[in-house]
Amino acid sequence: MKYINFDKTAVYQKLKNAALDFDLKNKLDAKRVGECVVPMAAGLTYSWAAKSVSDQTVKLLQELAEKQGLIEKYKTLLNGEVMNTGENRKVLHHLSRGQQGQPVIENGKNIGDFYRKELERFGDFANEVHQGKYKGSTGKPFTTVVQIGIGGSDLGPRAMYLALENWAATEGKKRMDAKFISNVDPDDASAVIAQCNLEQCLFILVSKSGTTQETLANELFVKDKLVKAGLDPSKQMIAVTSETSPLARNSAYLNSFYIDDYIGGRYSSTSAVGGCVLSLAFGPEVFKEFLSGAAEADKMALETDILKNAALLDALIGVWERNFLMYSSTAVLPYSQALSRFPAHLQQMDMESNGKRVNRNGESIDYSTGPVIFGEPGTNGQHSFYQLLHQGTNVIPLQFIGFTESQRHDDVTVDNSVSQTKLAANLAAQIVAFAKGQNSSDKNKEFPGGRPSSLIYGKKLTPAVLGSLLAHFENKVMFQGFVWNVNSYDQEGVQLGKILTKKVLSGNFGDSALEAYSKILGISFA
Amino acid sequence: MKYINFDKTAVYQKLKNAALDFDLKNKLDAKRVGECVVPMAAGLTYSWAAKSVSDQTVKLLQELAEKQGLIEKYKTLLNGEVMNTGENRKVLHHLSRGQQGQPVIENGKNIGDFYRKELERFGDFANEVHQGKYKGSTGKPFTTVVQIGIGGSDLGPRAMYLALENWAATEGKKRMDAKFISNVDPDDASAVIAQCNLEQCLFILVSKSGTTQETLANELFVKDKLVKAGLDPSKQMIAVTSETSPLARNSAYLNSFYIDDYIGGRYSSTSAVGGCVLSLAFGPEVFKEFLSGAAEADKMALETDILKNAALLDALIGVWERNFLMYSSTAVLPYSQALSRFPAHLQQMDMESNGKRVNRNGESIDYSTGPVIFGEPGTNGQHSFYQLLHQGTNVIPLQFIGFTESQRHDDVTVDNSVSQTKLAANLAAQIVAFAKGQNSSDKNKEFPGGRPSSLIYGKKLTPAVLGSLLAHFENKVMFQGFVWNVNSYDQEGVQLGKILTKKVLSGNFGDSALEAYSKILGISFA
Repeated sequence: MKYINFDKTAVYQKLKNAALDFDLKNKLDAKRVGECVVPMAAGLTYSWAAKSVSDQTVKLLQELAEKQGLIEKYKTLLNGEVMNTGENRKVLHHLSRGQQGQPVIENGKNIGDFYRKELERFGDFANEVHQGKYKGSTGKPFTTVVQIGIGGSDLGPRAMYLALENWAATEGKKRMDAKFISNVDPDDASAVIAQCNLEQCLFILVSKSGTTQETLANELFVKDKLVKAGLDPSKQMIAVTSETSPLARNSAYLNSFYIDDYIGGRYSSTSAVGGCVLSLAFGPEVFKEFLSGAAEADKMALETDILKNAALLDALIGVWERNFLMYSSTAVLPYSQALSRFPAHLQQMDMESNGKRVNRNGESIDYSTGPVIFGEPGTNGQHSFYQLLHQGTNVIPLQFIGFTESQRHDDVTVDNSVSQTKLAANLAAQIVAFAKGQNSSDKNKEFPGGRPSSLIYGKKLTPAVLGSLLAHFENKVMFQGFVWNVNSYDQEGVQLGKILTKKVLSGNFGDSALEAYSKILGISFA
Repeated sequence: MKYINFDKTAVYQKLKNAALDFDLKNKLDAKRVGECVVPMAAGLTYSWAAKSVSDQTVKLLQELAEKQGLIEKYKTLLNGEVMNTGENRKVLHHLSRGQQGQPVIENGKNIGDFYRKELERFGDFANEVHQGKYKGSTGKPFTTVVQIGIGGSDLGPRAMYLALENWAATEGKKRMDAKFISNVDPDDASAVIAQCNLEQCLFILVSKSGTTQETLANELFVKDKLVKAGLDPSKQMIAVTSETSPLARNSAYLNSFYIDDYIGGRYSSTSAVGGCVLSLAFGPEVFKEFLSGAAEADKMALETDILKNAALLDALIGVWERNFLMYSSTAVLPYSQALSRFPAHLQQMDMESNGKRVNRNGESIDYSTGPVIFGEPGTNGQHSFYQLLHQGTNVIPLQFIGFTESQRHDDVTVDNSVSQTKLAANLAAQIVAFAKGQNSSDKNKEFPGGRPSSLIYGKKLTPAVLGSLLAHFENKVMFQGFVWNVNSYDQEGVQLGKILTKKVLSGNFGDSALEAYSKILGISFA
């Protein structure tokens, strides 16, 4: 497998020389909307009609996919090669939801079997909790699950829970409420605990290494509260960790479920990190449906024709926008309240993966990598930052997501339409408004148009659809990492802050500014 | 008063020619941290030591402030001149919390008196609700207030409520729970209603014009639920609207409180829009403390020396970063879980105000205006997008916010420090890590440094401190608008989407792409 920097490829120069302008205003018509679609897993569709991408650009992007060996590299990753070069690790989150490549064997152990065994173990455990086999310290059934974790142990699982909470309630699948404690700010844990009936809460401690500062502080915060309430933490807390961590097989926990170093935090929603809390909240069958949607998306991402592979095409158009149209941020705009925290999850997944300035061998690179990702649900965002998106001085590509049905099927007719129809009408209107703009003799009422967007659409946000969506973006980010020749799976950029935090807490600052900032923030070692 | 485009000023050219490089890595020491501070209202401090700003830059920014008449223009705004040129309106949100300028008289009416009268009216109403003078349709006391509004009627009030909820609970000031319904997605209203005991809910309908599509749809959604539950909506809903709207003095509502066209939605947290819900949740005295912090900040923003005026200096450094260092986005990073939605509010306030491409006279401009604003609370963000902030290929200026005390005073000691100390230690560490970076022979572990940040810090997040924070950013955005010579107070960029939505809902698309998108999103007129 050949790994070369993006700007050293011949196709990079061809893209540099390609025409940047595309007359989106005039090209976007019903025919283009009908043609520029790619099927996705679980019945979703990726529509790229409103992207500023010409036939010539598509051709060059196809060539780029081939010359950078994107599908081959994906297969290599699936088959268990060390793709996290910096940390010398395999990258196996796909394996947590399906077997797309060869079995991955290490030291005689089939890693897929390990993931599948854990999936069954935490599924069985969730069923047993629901059946009342496990109860709180005072003998009452567990009604609430509280996940203690930060970063990937928080954002993804929380976003997935919120995405399915109303669907589950409506379908009669809601088993337990879920809450989340993440921030080391003590007000976070304190406020969540204050809302809980502690004797009916099952806590999940999530830390792969068993050494995450925030998570361990919050664990002790919670245990202190349990003990003070006369409850036994060892009967009310499980651990999700690696088999080699101090939390594993530790009698301080009711049970432990395992992950390994081959699934990064931001890719762990389909592992035990997301699986325990989602199985407890909605039942293991719902979690498996979610996995099935993700697995189907992973399979479809193996297609080599970029016009038939939504994740690949999305990735390549993103590269076009980032490196040639020079757009530095992307907005994710789900027209679905259930996806309220999905942009925050993608913000981590994308920015932590591809916010890199060295290639996979640790050598400096000379081109832009991951963009800023931000977003809020529509229609809320329309009344907030869309002003800048429509009429600001920079172009920001948009990723819309929409569904034809609501999750709760509870609606009202006002002015001859239900709210779900209004939601969809707003979404259609925005795509066209951004693409086509509006002329006006009053420049303040003029919309320049030519502002590109893509749309992922489907019938309803179900567990399988959510899995499909999640895997789509994971695979998009993976393909972009391959194009840019970066390692999307480490995060060295988080280390320096940890080191300096330890210095502050030890009182050995080693830097006068660090000491001065610590002092004004109230830290003293008198 | 002289209004000229930024690039037509002499100081623009001087800034263009000024040295961009500043050796932040080596200049940031205890002395600079001690010197580069500006007092803010309510005991906060603005620290700009870690900004890439030299003495020469400061001098030029002072000149810019004077040449563009920023303080004069602010006074003009306070005195009631029409500063929202596009809509021919005064801009009077400052007057909702204090009288900094001359009395503003219009048609013989003192507008300050009008705002003060409404403040007393909704304060009295809140007290009466708390005293049980008003009760739900079935005679039970109101325990929950539910705000129905979108955009500025949602983001600001919601962020302020979340910021004070734990403080109020701890101080014994929490009177009622507050919930919010905003999105036209029917799942939003349906899910909120499902969590409510309807007979004890008081609803606040917020729409200045009384015509906001989402809000009216949600009003009817709620009323339908109330009627189906055998409750009387006219006894359980109040309106916040303009005196000329169809909602005013309407017997369908228990009471109405008024705003006017001189307070834009995104600046309405200190008016009845924020005041009703916050006074009901925490009592009118708490809301008045919040206003006092904002008023003090407004007063301090009149200072002409940029080194003594935090909002002005923050604004000017932002212009320096946007137009000369060419940074296109800014991250807002509060180390406070209570401020979890404060970045979302600033995202609206800033991007909707200054995301403009024409000047205040509607003429095209040739320089960058408002940046992308995004953010999440720390330490959570550290485990998410900070990788890109530290090691990505673009520099993103950072706005940190931190406090020495938690709101709930409920903490745990782990490894010799409480969580609040860990939170502060992380914040100090991040500022220094971004500014100074780290050399390494392994380029993957190298941090380039030179990444600028500012810090707003104080003792504890109280109502007055929150008011100070809010007004700081409002005034910062105002000053930037003056520099850029744009109208920060209209939002023509939201109009085109509304027009096209109406076309979709009427079935008269007038555009084949609009019809095609509507069809794939499930809208049909069979």
